[in-house]
Amino acid sequence: MTAFDFAARLNSFRVGAKEYWRGYNGKVTTFDLVDRAATVPGLNAVDFNYPDHLEGVTEAETRDRLQAAGVRLNGYAMRYYTEPEFKIGAFTNPDPAIRRKAIDLTLRGLDSLAEAGGDLMTLWLGQDGFDYSFQADYDRLWEMSVEGIREVAAHNPAIDISLEYKPNEPRSFSVMPDAATTLLAIRDVGLPNLGVTLDFAHSLYANEMPANTAALIARHSRVLGIHLNDGYGKRDDGLMVGAVHVMQTVELLHALDGIGYRGVIYFDTFPDTTGLDPVAECTVNIATVTAIGRVVDRLRNNEMLAAAIQKQDAAASQAIVQAALFGS
Amino acid sequence: MTAFDFAARLNSFRVGAKEYWRGYNGKVTTFDLVDRAATVPGLNAVDFNYPDHLEGVTEAETRDRLQAAGVRLNGYAMRYYTEPEFKIGAFTNPDPAIRRKAIDLTLRGLDSLAEAGGDLMTLWLGQDGFDYSFQADYDRLWEMSVEGIREVAAHNPAIDISLEYKPNEPRSFSVMPDAATTLLAIRDVGLPNLGVTLDFAHSLYANEMPANTAALIARHSRVLGIHLNDGYGKRDDGLMVGAVHVMQTVELLHALDGIGYRGVIYFDTFPDTTGLDPVAECTVNIATVTAIGRVVDRLRNNEMLAAAIQKQDAAASQAIVQAALFGS
Amino acid sequence: MTAFDFAARLNSFRVGAKEYWRGYNGKVTTFDLVDRAATVPGLNAVDFNYPDHLEGVTEAETRDRLQAAGVRLNGYAMRYYTEPEFKIGAFTNPDPAIRRKAIDLTLRGLDSLAEAGGDLMTLWLGQDGFDYSFQADYDRLWEMSVEGIREVAAHNPAIDISLEYKPNEPRSFSVMPDAATTLLAIRDVGLPNLGVTLDFAHSLYANEMPANTAALIARHSRVLGIHLNDGYGKRDDGLMVGAVHVMQTVELLHALDGIGYRGVIYFDTFPDTTGLDPVAECTVNIATVTAIGRVVDRLRNNEMLAAAIQKQDAAASQAIVQAALFGS
Amino acid sequence: MTAFDFAARLNSFRVGAKEYWRGYNGKVTTFDLVDRAATVPGLNAVDFNYPDHLEGVTEAETRDRLQAAGVRLNGYAMRYYTEPEFKIGAFTNPDPAIRRKAIDLTLRGLDSLAEAGGDLMTLWLGQDGFDYSFQADYDRLWEMSVEGIREVAAHNPAIDISLEYKPNEPRSFSVMPDAATTLLAIRDVGLPNLGVTLDFAHSLYANEMPANTAALIARHSRVLGIHLNDGYGKRDDGLMVGAVHVMQTVELLHALDGIGYRGVIYFDTFPDTTGLDPVAECTVNIATVTAIGRVVDRLRNNEMLAAAIQKQDAAASQAIVQAALFGS
Repeated sequence: MTAFDFAARLNSFRVGAKEYWRGYNGKVTTFDLVDRAATVPGLNAVDFNYPDHLEGVTEAETRDRLQAAGVRLNGYAMRYYTEPEFKIGAFTNPDPAIRRKAIDLTLRGLDSLAEAGGDLMTLWLGQDGFDYSFQADYDRLWEMSVEGIREVAAHNPAIDISLEYKPNEPRSFSVMPDAATTLLAIRDVGLPNLGVTLDFAHSLYANEMPANTAALIARHSRVLGIHLNDGYGKRDDGLMVGAVHVMQTVELLHALDGIGYRGVIYFDTFPDTTGLDPVAECTVNIATVTAIGRVVDRLRNNEMLAAAIQKQDAAASQAIVQAALFGS
Repeated sequence: MTAFDFAARLNSFRVGAKEYWRGYNGKVTTFDLVDRAATVPGLNAVDFNYPDHLEGVTEAETRDRLQAAGVRLNGYAMRYYTEPEFKIGAFTNPDPAIRRKAIDLTLRGLDSLAEAGGDLMTLWLGQDGFDYSFQADYDRLWEMSVEGIREVAAHNPAIDISLEYKPNEPRSFSVMPDAATTLLAIRDVGLPNLGVTLDFAHSLYANEMPANTAALIARHSRVLGIHLNDGYGKRDDGLMVGAVHVMQTVELLHALDGIGYRGVIYFDTFPDTTGLDPVAECTVNIATVTAIGRVVDRLRNNEMLAAAIQKQDAAASQAIVQAALFGS
Repeated sequence: MTAFDFAARLNSFRVGAKEYWRGYNGKVTTFDLVDRAATVPGLNAVDFNYPDHLEGVTEAETRDRLQAAGVRLNGYAMRYYTEPEFKIGAFTNPDPAIRRKAIDLTLRGLDSLAEAGGDLMTLWLGQDGFDYSFQADYDRLWEMSVEGIREVAAHNPAIDISLEYKPNEPRSFSVMPDAATTLLAIRDVGLPNLGVTLDFAHSLYANEMPANTAALIARHSRVLGIHLNDGYGKRDDGLMVGAVHVMQTVELLHALDGIGYRGVIYFDTFPDTTGLDPVAECTVNIATVTAIGRVVDRLRNNEMLAAAIQKQDAAASQAIVQAALFGS
Repeated sequence: MTAFDFAARLNSFRVGAKEYWRGYNGKVTTFDLVDRAATVPGLNAVDFNYPDHLEGVTEAETRDRLQAAGVRLNGYAMRYYTEPEFKIGAFTNPDPAIRRKAIDLTLRGLDSLAEAGGDLMTLWLGQDGFDYSFQADYDRLWEMSVEGIREVAAHNPAIDISLEYKPNEPRSFSVMPDAATTLLAIRDVGLPNLGVTLDFAHSLYANEMPANTAALIARHSRVLGIHLNDGYGKRDDGLMVGAVHVMQTVELLHALDGIGYRGVIYFDTFPDTTGLDPVAECTVNIATVTAIGRVVDRLRNNEMLAAAIQKQDAAASQAIVQAALFGS
């Protein structure tokens, strides 16, 4: 399998701050988090949340510190939930002034990202949605989303904008709940620097089969980000890779191999809410992906597997993949 | 509210055949079913499944008998699950000969429909999907679907082809599981006589909000059919209208009013599996839609509701809609 | 319908503090929240979270202030998620010292409640669960839960202990995910002052029919609390009453009428995360329950409805209930 | 791991009858199915559906033919859905005469089973449930279920009665939807020859963790049957073992090892609806369980795993189990 770069949720590394940082005074800086993340063997990339992770630091400093830590900047991810005013919408906020503020914040994020030397901005428009019937004008929500994304994507054509969809939470319904809706929006926007981030757990509870979704995205746009994790298909559990959907994870990595994905594997897991040591947890994630990578290697260019898939013969393909998995 | 035409699942009217038809000899004809359906006050349209409902009758006869029964032909719906060979796919069957057979059957259905005087063909591609990881080449499934739909839509531009999506069942995953994926396929096909059938219960367990979906379809294509029913959002329960999602049904009918939907309301409910008398059950459905229609009338051009929606103020809109609903 | 007392989530009333409280200095006291809640016409009871709502006040003060505000104390609800150490378990924490701390906190809560003049303690053991296969010894989790509940219930037989179940969140799986498991635990504990709190939205996404669950609880234990709200059956949406499951809410209130429930109706809704004014939102909830109460009144002692239910004839009962609902 | 006996859904072996049986005349006998099933290497037990699989044959013949085929009788499973009159209920049918018929059929099944030399009767009361609010008196449903089960269990104390629960389908809600409700009913019945059949896919979409459920059943009753298969946790997919929930299957088999389960592993999968050759499919299932058995062997008496579980440290246990799984 392709040798991937690995990144992980930076905020996970806040867990157990008091025990971890000697002389801890209640404050953990972004660079503290980076340094701790960099202790995970194999972790070599990082994503910053904007604006929070960039508060009080300059982009130049950021570049230096990342270099010193031996990790590269994968990109930024916008965060709109830090402000109560974005609670019922960022790009779809009913108040034009607040909507403007959300877009302007994003534009500043793009400028900061460029200065920091990055070229990938992830947008999870998690506040843009609705909870109730008769709460919103659905056409207006769509238009505000599409126009907002267009303005943001047009700002700097050198930066890729990746839309990360999620079915719900915090809102009961998202404007961008799944890959297909996101691809429709991308077509409506019509700019080339757009793409999609596939979060494995989001995909599962959007009732998708992740490898199918990767193919659908690659056909209609580009896979710009992969968030690996796992869950039970009912909510955003944030579990370690392979904790549940082993076969579907093998298939997704096999599919990414096929479409030539060269981006980062970002572990969007929640050791903080599951009470785990973030370094140990991330280490297990990298070990699991490495083990699954060997399974993918065994399946590459396997003619019997190709023939079984050609015939849609799941008994045959299951036997082949199980054998590759269990190493028999 | 618009005065809708109403239709219902014809096969529901098979229930209790022995008691209903004197001299019942084990066989119920399509026209028997039509005659029984026509006893429901207010039911004035009918959909035929092709090929089963057309077996052994001519299109000319069909026209005459419908006229005699006082119901109009809404359209045909293709059925691929009557043949075991379509079990793992109609348009996406791995065997080119069986795939050809599915498409040819559809073309014959279109010809029959034209002859019978109809202009709406509903395609539920329920066999086209997959159950397992590593069962199918997802790109190939998509291409076979799009090419099949294109050939069918191109056959007779005077007939509208409406795609009815469904998340799963019989397959674990459908190629067309939800509205957004269906709209992507429609764009890929690129023909004007395509549209979408929104089945309320399918929409719920595809995690959609039906009125939002109606708006999304109207924006990117056309709403060509509405299947009303209800369910608990977890499977295709086939319940009577308003049995669960009263507010969402009010909102959908309000939205259809807004986009000027003029098609039939088809009750896709399962009195047969829920042990109900089909005539009584359909009568209740029509009464409920009529009552909800009065609620929709009370909400039309309601400036306070429009203002609440403009502000995305769900407490205000909920108060207005509850008042309209409970008649206070 | 019985005239219910009404309570609501106290923390909802923190929303918009800066605008609501003149001279707001960043701190809202429990009594501020009570006073604001008491402005909702019809709200006449209150639940406190322990320990947070009791911090810095005495029980005697609390009694006085509630009397002054014209609301009565419905009871306390324990909160274990305020402490990071309870993250992977309160009564089931793997560290015996932390487990002890959780139980002792509960015992102190019971003493405080008694002193404040209340007799109902709600336990939502939300931290007690697991996220992963191979994370915990399931037998041990059960035993620690049952023993913890037994110790707490034995502490003061004059106080009723009501267990509030929830399928998941924050943990992927709860030890007490649904009513039936909770009833099994209550039998294992074997003390008479135990009962169950039915939260409507929790019940929906536990795949329960709330009125059936009320009957099951009443048969095997006691319904000690009702949390009304609504949701889409997939997560804890915290919506206003009647926003989705109108018929199921009517049925639950009808069932509570039948079993003689005399407790409080507590609105466990989230105006804070859905961006609503908490006073307006609660006012709508009370109006909706009042309107539904009139529907329940129309159905009481309805012989046709009783006959339909006796025959399990859903078409007949649906017609009767829809007529009562739509006021026709 | 324990060397299990294996059985599989007999009706799966009807698939492709025309191709499989030379001189096929449209009729496949029960013994034809047994003979075909027996061609699967390792399959050595069989379950019959009553009454359908016993029609036209005697119990004595059955014993002879099973001996000849080299498979042992695991037990019978009642089937109530073959009769339209049971559509809205077997033990809970509103018509006392039809209810009586369902119970009497079960008693005859028990007599036939005893004569055939078996001692395990599986009851899946799939028709006993409800679809609508206000359809049924929930107390009455419970009482009819408990009394029916009691009469059946009392009929022959030498035969174990195993209740197989399922959340829904065909009914929207089952009286016995999950393990905990079933265990409550078993307590209410109060007879020792009762137990529970855990169907893996049913358990998943009942929101259970199967190994936790096995422990809960073993604590409150007995695990009398295991139906292995897999699914996506949303419906009864009937997939091959390990197709999705690899870790949860490992954990369940590990748990069964721990509680000393000595019954049959029955593959309740649907090669018929997923278009697979039933012999090939069953062969893959046995191979997968055998491979997982080796993983379970590696985990038995693993002190590091025990220590991780004692601490509820999922990062540690995940590392250990993944290593055992991937054979590293």
